[in-house]
Amino acid sequence: MNYVNYEKYTAWMRKIADVKNAIAVLSWDQETYQPSMGADFRGQQISTLSGLAHDLFLNPELEKVLADLQTDTSLTDSQKKNVQLSFDDLKREKKYSTAFVEEISKAISEAYHAWVKARSKNDFKTFEPKLKKLVELKRKEAELLGYENHPYNALLNLYEPLQTVSDTDVLFDDLKKELVPFIKKIAEKKQPKNDFMFGHFPKQNQWQLGIELLKQMNFDFNAGRQDESVHPFTTAFAPTDVRLTTHIEEKNFYTMIWSCLHEGGHGLYEQGLPTSHYGLPGGEAVSLGIHESQSRLWENMVGRSLNYWKGNWKTVQQFFPGKFENLTAVDFYKAINMVEPSLIRIEADELTYHFHVIIRYEIEKLLLDGSLEVADIPAVWNKKYFDYLGVKVPNDAMGCLQDIHWSHGSFGYFPTYTIGSLYAAQFFHFAKKEIAGLDSMIENGDLKPLLEWLRKKIHQHGRLKSAKEISEDICGEPLNVKYFVDYAKEKFGN
Amino acid sequence: MNYVNYEKYTAWMRKIADVKNAIAVLSWDQETYQPSMGADFRGQQISTLSGLAHDLFLNPELEKVLADLQTDTSLTDSQKKNVQLSFDDLKREKKYSTAFVEEISKAISEAYHAWVKARSKNDFKTFEPKLKKLVELKRKEAELLGYENHPYNALLNLYEPLQTVSDTDVLFDDLKKELVPFIKKIAEKKQPKNDFMFGHFPKQNQWQLGIELLKQMNFDFNAGRQDESVHPFTTAFAPTDVRLTTHIEEKNFYTMIWSCLHEGGHGLYEQGLPTSHYGLPGGEAVSLGIHESQSRLWENMVGRSLNYWKGNWKTVQQFFPGKFENLTAVDFYKAINMVEPSLIRIEADELTYHFHVIIRYEIEKLLLDGSLEVADIPAVWNKKYFDYLGVKVPNDAMGCLQDIHWSHGSFGYFPTYTIGSLYAAQFFHFAKKEIAGLDSMIENGDLKPLLEWLRKKIHQHGRLKSAKEISEDICGEPLNVKYFVDYAKEKFGN
Repeated sequence: MNYVNYEKYTAWMRKIADVKNAIAVLSWDQETYQPSMGADFRGQQISTLSGLAHDLFLNPELEKVLADLQTDTSLTDSQKKNVQLSFDDLKREKKYSTAFVEEISKAISEAYHAWVKARSKNDFKTFEPKLKKLVELKRKEAELLGYENHPYNALLNLYEPLQTVSDTDVLFDDLKKELVPFIKKIAEKKQPKNDFMFGHFPKQNQWQLGIELLKQMNFDFNAGRQDESVHPFTTAFAPTDVRLTTHIEEKNFYTMIWSCLHEGGHGLYEQGLPTSHYGLPGGEAVSLGIHESQSRLWENMVGRSLNYWKGNWKTVQQFFPGKFENLTAVDFYKAINMVEPSLIRIEADELTYHFHVIIRYEIEKLLLDGSLEVADIPAVWNKKYFDYLGVKVPNDAMGCLQDIHWSHGSFGYFPTYTIGSLYAAQFFHFAKKEIAGLDSMIENGDLKPLLEWLRKKIHQHGRLKSAKEISEDICGEPLNVKYFVDYAKEKFGN
Repeated sequence: MNYVNYEKYTAWMRKIADVKNAIAVLSWDQETYQPSMGADFRGQQISTLSGLAHDLFLNPELEKVLADLQTDTSLTDSQKKNVQLSFDDLKREKKYSTAFVEEISKAISEAYHAWVKARSKNDFKTFEPKLKKLVELKRKEAELLGYENHPYNALLNLYEPLQTVSDTDVLFDDLKKELVPFIKKIAEKKQPKNDFMFGHFPKQNQWQLGIELLKQMNFDFNAGRQDESVHPFTTAFAPTDVRLTTHIEEKNFYTMIWSCLHEGGHGLYEQGLPTSHYGLPGGEAVSLGIHESQSRLWENMVGRSLNYWKGNWKTVQQFFPGKFENLTAVDFYKAINMVEPSLIRIEADELTYHFHVIIRYEIEKLLLDGSLEVADIPAVWNKKYFDYLGVKVPNDAMGCLQDIHWSHGSFGYFPTYTIGSLYAAQFFHFAKKEIAGLDSMIENGDLKPLLEWLRKKIHQHGRLKSAKEISEDICGEPLNVKYFVDYAKEKFGN
């Protein structure tokens, strides 16, 4: 066995991971503690480290080691898998020329600034030429990367490997078919009372409640922490150092808890990745969809369930004396599960959310295959919002300019939000089947068995099992909408 | 002019600075926010980045550019100076072989762990063999670096360039001569009342007072911040992002304020370094002694002066209602300026502090030139403490094991503490002469003119003026003890 070569490979990859994790620390600090004037040098520092990580990865010496290891029959299965995935990553990375990377970085920077301006002025025209340039470059990127059938596949696979446009079309069409009439039916019903969700909820109490709930879900505070930022996110510098952030609105009780549970779900996945594979594919999250399945499962299947709130109702009442005095866990449960079509994705409920995603996905595909001009985005956007959700978009700032993603060049990213929710429902169905008494465990705040199940089935594998393999192993079938639709109908049918 | 070469040199140096500043961010996080389990991977990440910075610096391409620039007559004076200093740095760095760096890193790691154990067990023998090894390597390092007259010069110059053992001997002997009888005289006097410095001082109020005092001294919170850590320190990621830390004791009012002012003084220096020289010697602090002069000046000359406390007395009273009710600024001033020989350096007052430094310096010199065996440190230590300070050392934990420095291999570092205090007194003397009405400005909280004077005389030059040049420019003479002794006699003579 070529032990020396495998050692060399792992040492090399760990070094790259060290640099990338340093970038993660710098980026985390940028969003949490960095004073305003530090931004310029910080941007430069991150860019220097990115360049160093890139150069380390594209070093011919590593490529040679990887090539040798590919024909090394003495490796274990997981070693082989690590080598294969790294080799594929390297092949993909090599397709990007320095000139292309520079061109697209510049285009992204310009598009981002134009987007900020366009949104504040509510003027799509300001963004249009920059977005057009970016779409052109994204089409070029798809060509560079190569694809089968649809150029969108190349970009989608950057976030969700092996997932195709055809798979996704089937999923999203099924979902539309089921949800459109269902949401219409719900819309006709009387909305529950929810005035108690507004008022004044002191920051310190919200913060402490969030920490309690994270502890209850077994987020390990010896291997992670939570801080504040404008937009909540999760990042990790190692499985032993996972950082969550949250944002607290004192007037609105709808945000903090589920942001904590959502990021906590991401965080538990990161804490569950094997440290023994640090720097190797085996130590990385398998896909954005699977990552999102973890956040959604904790946020929605657990955190918006009646059992969870029956169990935690006293806690919430204690944290906000007088606020929820004459209310029951059922009142709260109803208030946090209201379904109402709306304009803004990040404020959407568990059901209508998916139309926000599907609309963006459909538009992205059209842009990528050239059948939609950037100039026509607002019209198509507004029509789809009316067709799918029955809402009229009053202006582009609240319409196609609302999300940052396109200005960052993140085409292919949006679908993973819905894919994640579908995986979440599907996995949760099997968790319930396999963990006897899960419902009452959730009511009792005993969330460890669920975490252990997720650890065993998903977290511990890193990228050594693909998302599709994970799905097959857990469910005996690929991703489909059945479980999510069942979950939705049972929960929202009443 | 070889504009291309100079551009190449600056771009290269900035890249190295980016990596080093990334290390600083990781280290800052390690001391402030990092969860306990994150320590191992963090250590590895810092070590990887250190290796990358080292490799970048020792790259033959940079050496070639620097060699070419050395003969480039078209450079401006400050460009020439940058090049010369970088070339000297490079020459010095090249003297360390990889084998030596690895050997000393290992020895430091072992010495550190042995020191922690030795101190907790109060057993010098546990530390002795590891310290012996480290002293041997430090002697070897002095040989590698080269020196004139005394091997200690080589190590001292790592922290205080151009400062020699002969210079330092003169300074320290003068200081001893003046201070020993002076401190004896003070010791005979009645100590002022200071019971009001103990009790309960709520953390939040202390924190807020610290921030107010930092704002008053014009620390720029848009270009820096303060956080908490076990041991206060200052670090910078750029002049536009300077991080202070403090530590708050609720029962003891002696620590927080002067820790804030001390670190704030370091922080003002860092914020005053020119961003245009980022990554170049012109953008770096000139020496540890000058750095310490800034912290000491704000901590002692300003922050322990009667004027300062006359001005801030109401503020302190307001922050701690009832605590200082029947007291005046003069009572407070007396309490914070008590002189009393003691055993622990970091708790020492402004005068006896220097004996702690001098004792370590004298021992280090003896170790370096081979005239003292490591085994004999405790005996020599205890004798010197009795001779200079009249105190009996009850055990080694409170004696020669108290400081971390030797276990880190930091020989040559201690003298910069006293050198800094001497510079502080000397600079402050001239600041008072040149800034009309400085005393009343301090009383009025108008500290900007003093900062601007320091910016102009010291901060803006980075390393482009040596410590000795700065002293000559400000005072027309080199560093000496006269100003400190005058300051001490005036302040403590009453």
